[in-house]
Amino acid sequence: VPLVRALTGQVPGPAAGFVHLGATSQDVLDTATALVARRALEPLREDLAAAAARCWELAEQHRDTVMAGRTLMQQALPTTFGLKAAGWAGGLDAGGRGLTGPPLPVQLGGAAGTLASLGEHGLEVRARLAESLGLPEPLLPWHTERTPVARLGTALGIAGAAVGKVASDVVLMSQTEVADVTEGAPGGSSTMPHKRNPVAAICARACAAQGPGLVATLLATMVQEHERAAGAWHAEWRPVTERLRSTGSAATWLRRCLDGLTVSPERMRRNLDATGGLLLAERVTGALAPDLGRLAAHDLVERACAAAVAEGRPLRDVLARDSDVRLEPFHIDRLLDPASYVGVAGALVDRALAAHREEPE
Amino acid sequence: VPLVRALTGQVPGPAAGFVHLGATSQDVLDTATALVARRALEPLREDLAAAAARCWELAEQHRDTVMAGRTLMQQALPTTFGLKAAGWAGGLDAGGRGLTGPPLPVQLGGAAGTLASLGEHGLEVRARLAESLGLPEPLLPWHTERTPVARLGTALGIAGAAVGKVASDVVLMSQTEVADVTEGAPGGSSTMPHKRNPVAAICARACAAQGPGLVATLLATMVQEHERAAGAWHAEWRPVTERLRSTGSAATWLRRCLDGLTVSPERMRRNLDATGGLLLAERVTGALAPDLGRLAAHDLVERACAAAVAEGRPLRDVLARDSDVRLEPFHIDRLLDPASYVGVAGALVDRALAAHREEPE
Amino acid sequence: VPLVRALTGQVPGPAAGFVHLGATSQDVLDTATALVARRALEPLREDLAAAAARCWELAEQHRDTVMAGRTLMQQALPTTFGLKAAGWAGGLDAGGRGLTGPPLPVQLGGAAGTLASLGEHGLEVRARLAESLGLPEPLLPWHTERTPVARLGTALGIAGAAVGKVASDVVLMSQTEVADVTEGAPGGSSTMPHKRNPVAAICARACAAQGPGLVATLLATMVQEHERAAGAWHAEWRPVTERLRSTGSAATWLRRCLDGLTVSPERMRRNLDATGGLLLAERVTGALAPDLGRLAAHDLVERACAAAVAEGRPLRDVLARDSDVRLEPFHIDRLLDPASYVGVAGALVDRALAAHREEPE
Amino acid sequence: VPLVRALTGQVPGPAAGFVHLGATSQDVLDTATALVARRALEPLREDLAAAAARCWELAEQHRDTVMAGRTLMQQALPTTFGLKAAGWAGGLDAGGRGLTGPPLPVQLGGAAGTLASLGEHGLEVRARLAESLGLPEPLLPWHTERTPVARLGTALGIAGAAVGKVASDVVLMSQTEVADVTEGAPGGSSTMPHKRNPVAAICARACAAQGPGLVATLLATMVQEHERAAGAWHAEWRPVTERLRSTGSAATWLRRCLDGLTVSPERMRRNLDATGGLLLAERVTGALAPDLGRLAAHDLVERACAAAVAEGRPLRDVLARDSDVRLEPFHIDRLLDPASYVGVAGALVDRALAAHREEPE
Repeated sequence: VPLVRALTGQVPGPAAGFVHLGATSQDVLDTATALVARRALEPLREDLAAAAARCWELAEQHRDTVMAGRTLMQQALPTTFGLKAAGWAGGLDAGGRGLTGPPLPVQLGGAAGTLASLGEHGLEVRARLAESLGLPEPLLPWHTERTPVARLGTALGIAGAAVGKVASDVVLMSQTEVADVTEGAPGGSSTMPHKRNPVAAICARACAAQGPGLVATLLATMVQEHERAAGAWHAEWRPVTERLRSTGSAATWLRRCLDGLTVSPERMRRNLDATGGLLLAERVTGALAPDLGRLAAHDLVERACAAAVAEGRPLRDVLARDSDVRLEPFHIDRLLDPASYVGVAGALVDRALAAHREEPE
Repeated sequence: VPLVRALTGQVPGPAAGFVHLGATSQDVLDTATALVARRALEPLREDLAAAAARCWELAEQHRDTVMAGRTLMQQALPTTFGLKAAGWAGGLDAGGRGLTGPPLPVQLGGAAGTLASLGEHGLEVRARLAESLGLPEPLLPWHTERTPVARLGTALGIAGAAVGKVASDVVLMSQTEVADVTEGAPGGSSTMPHKRNPVAAICARACAAQGPGLVATLLATMVQEHERAAGAWHAEWRPVTERLRSTGSAATWLRRCLDGLTVSPERMRRNLDATGGLLLAERVTGALAPDLGRLAAHDLVERACAAAVAEGRPLRDVLARDSDVRLEPFHIDRLLDPASYVGVAGALVDRALAAHREEPE
Repeated sequence: VPLVRALTGQVPGPAAGFVHLGATSQDVLDTATALVARRALEPLREDLAAAAARCWELAEQHRDTVMAGRTLMQQALPTTFGLKAAGWAGGLDAGGRGLTGPPLPVQLGGAAGTLASLGEHGLEVRARLAESLGLPEPLLPWHTERTPVARLGTALGIAGAAVGKVASDVVLMSQTEVADVTEGAPGGSSTMPHKRNPVAAICARACAAQGPGLVATLLATMVQEHERAAGAWHAEWRPVTERLRSTGSAATWLRRCLDGLTVSPERMRRNLDATGGLLLAERVTGALAPDLGRLAAHDLVERACAAAVAEGRPLRDVLARDSDVRLEPFHIDRLLDPASYVGVAGALVDRALAAHREEPE
Repeated sequence: VPLVRALTGQVPGPAAGFVHLGATSQDVLDTATALVARRALEPLREDLAAAAARCWELAEQHRDTVMAGRTLMQQALPTTFGLKAAGWAGGLDAGGRGLTGPPLPVQLGGAAGTLASLGEHGLEVRARLAESLGLPEPLLPWHTERTPVARLGTALGIAGAAVGKVASDVVLMSQTEVADVTEGAPGGSSTMPHKRNPVAAICARACAAQGPGLVATLLATMVQEHERAAGAWHAEWRPVTERLRSTGSAATWLRRCLDGLTVSPERMRRNLDATGGLLLAERVTGALAPDLGRLAAHDLVERACAAAVAEGRPLRDVLARDSDVRLEPFHIDRLLDPASYVGVAGALVDRALAAHREEPE
């Protein structure tokens, strides 16, 4: 009430009599949230799109860059960095698409949602307000029907987690012992002059980690009583703001991280070779199967792998000395060449790139 | 491995050699999740739609049933039960719409997502698998790009919370002291023969209350490492199942609750009249404003309300005896009639019903 | 690094050479968090204790104030407001006790937790730092062993939810149709001069509603990598601050709410009587059982309750006219008197008060 | 009601008349939860203690095993595996201590918590029930004062996260490129004969990842209405069970993981040496500072590190050729020896072990 009086005093002429007329405070705050969200989503979507675009670029450039595919944090089979980057891009694009729906609508319902104090002009006033602010007009007042807020919150949650996935992969690939990639402007340390921390990816991760809890709050507060909630609406304010802020920051940090990312195909290849051909074991089994039967082939290769690990010798040598393996050395070499065992990785990248290019901006 | 061997033994003829060929266990489990989700969503959507349909019916029947609009749990201004029911319907429909997207896609990528062990036939096998199961084919393997799972989870979260909102309003309106509505088959008590618990609404609420935590888990587990996660994927299994189950139960319970709901327009009116016209104070102010000025009118009415509460007399009498109020008694009575102060409630219901009827099934 | 240089410049004399020596940035931030938490917990605990004290006062004053006990939001059996207030007090005290543990310890470990750059003086420096700040010294560095933070976060979560329980009951009891209690300084409305919103309770609820999501984040971020986390530590900062802030606000609001709470024994009694004796049905069954058998007694009373509701008559009259009920009217009246059917409510309040008084401050 | 009748039929003699007498269904379910929790916590605490004991053993055995301390996922400074394992042990012990509080109390309050239908015997019956079940007697009924449940839930949450921290470190240290440790019975793969997945740690992680969401639900459901909640109590059932189950599984898996863990001091040393002395840069700065001034020393070392990385040469050689570095080669070698730069790691382990031994079982 004092605020309304204060504002009324600042409005000149006959308009003063119309300040706040017919509106309830939730009308003002929900409409303000709609305006804030619209403004905050713009740079957020731009950063997300830029990060995705960079991933598509990496996918194309590294379509055939062979690297270790890792499952359960162990080297599994060869894959390509192109396929990995295409997967990142796909996730970021999906996250961005979730944020392209209609903006939050205008809110104007008055004390109980009936616009009673505006008499017969209620719907016309609401329509003009929506038009002048460029916000959609809702079918019904949404004072306690919070799907619009929850939809925004969950879409931000998904986009933030997509960022978190990419950032986590970058952090893992940047480990001193892995070093498949390096951030362009890694962070230094006040005491350790050698440190090259992937700080942009780390910040993106830190932002993303705050997402699930915020979304949980926004879903819990969807249950609002009658015509205006006794607490749940007020509990939304901070999480909505934080959700916009932290997802926006996550996207900005990831964009920065990817823009300067240095990819090392040499190091990727060196990591792949570090296990001396073990990653190709599956393929050798396939090659021996027609001759020995699938089961016997599997057992032979398993034994060979165990011997290679135990003796610290390349799988190639262990296979070559095994009399049951009737393959020429050059044939074994070809089987153990990771670059020729990446399946349809290239085709998948091509398809994804083609689909991406067809998508409307 | 033992499972694959056991299954292989049960498949007759040459097909035995193709059991699990080219697939990794995540291919099997993700595809199974897609099939389970598709099957579980069918009755869930049906229950949700039936609950919404019942709300639209109530909205139409009670377009002009006047009741107390309540904000912050206090009677505020009159509204109609029709507008309230339309708001419920709108939320349930929005929740249902979020669940109509494409189903989860098939998963087939092999150990590292490259389909390497299927040689050049990888993509063809995947296409045929998708076709034979009637599931969409993904552009890329989604072993660690979990947007599909998160999107399902958040859509279930929003639908469940929409159910929770309606169920909470029913529970509040069923309170002994309020009794605007009664469940058709209220639950008895082993010890209290008089109890009429709104059990269906309570069960719906209990299901809905488990939603936000489950969604938080599904968003947190979106951050999955490399080509297959070391834990986060496995952590999805229970929450996905629980999310389907509890949202499905919530919808079933709400449908049952609403199907048998008894609405009492008499009681609604009695509750509205219990404050002796106080709810219409805003309107009296409006009527006095041209004569006294808006500010003076507000102050006069505020004093009259205070006196009415303090003396336990109807606002009508307090106003009638005030010499500053130059209104005929019949005029005061008309101002204090709640049925004529519900603003655009009827028009909003008509619009929403019309929009609902135009929507494709 | 630039910050360290700037600080070094501001420190006079030989001390300049020791700025940040041996410390890593996490040492500074974790120790700062410990100091902030200690300072923030003081008023929080005070507000919580004051709110609890007020509840104990209400429990004593209203030891024998009969009111409707409500289960599943329906009137169930009589209880006393004293027992209800004692339950509130118990919850608030339990929440407060959870916050009386040792404060967060000092943090000083240097870059990898070994205090290497302080040579042999490491542990002595840490001990002196702890002493000069008045913080406990930890056994081990806790850079990635985040139990202290999680314990603080969950204790705040429990205390906040205890506040939420009391605030919710106040909001429900303040409903226009219930009015068992009224806030001393209820909030007005810019447009509705009659509104008496329990704003302090509503704000307390709004603060409490943000708790679970924040705690979820603080538990998720407990999983921190190696010697310093790549994101999870940074993700703690905001939720820790918010958790302190929102629990503190919740306690302040609740204290304000309870300090001015007006209790209406008359209204409580009127609500209790509104069902015309139905709440005592259980007791009548007990009185008839010796005569008719327990099962027959239950069935008779159930029929009588149904008739009372259907005909809108007091249960007393329905029972009096039933020839199977061989009880004198004054006996029926005594059975239907709620004040004499509150079981051990008084004894429970006495015990709880006695236990509370014995507790050390 | 039907259940009570059925049970009554199964109880012989006069006892039949006392089945469920004075109790409400929540009395039965809450007491059952207390019994289930007590039974489930026993093996859980045992597994947790066994896992912690194994960590203490590792701490002692590897008190002086030098390895790379890693911050932000980058090698930072040398530390010892003993200090790391002691940190794990400390976290697990803290998690276990949180689970040693008093068990959930018995619940017996009847329909509204007043034990009214038991007349004057109410408190005696409750005391005997508590005694016969070996559960503590509560001061007040806790039907809607859910601190006991929340405290159990959050303690399980903290214990589960402590498990998750250790499991995550094991998974990271088991990476193909790191291999500091290996699980004793790593999981194979149906298609990849060389895979050595740390399956026990992965399962522990998967269990732990479900914790935060469950705790969020248990905190949100603490806000229960009046004398029995209309939904929030029912919403507790699944999360309490799941919380016990998943924390128990996490502890079992971690115990199994640690029991068979193979530690490789050689590999740890090899990883440490892989950066050619860069990790000791901080120490070199310290040694040059007296001569050159702290700032100049820092700049010189930073340049040397950059040169070492750029040229792919050991830091030792770069320093040796720099004319500003007036240190003998053997002195440089000693500075770059990681084993002599682990600060107070050993002393910290000794202290922690001593404190652990003094703790009562």
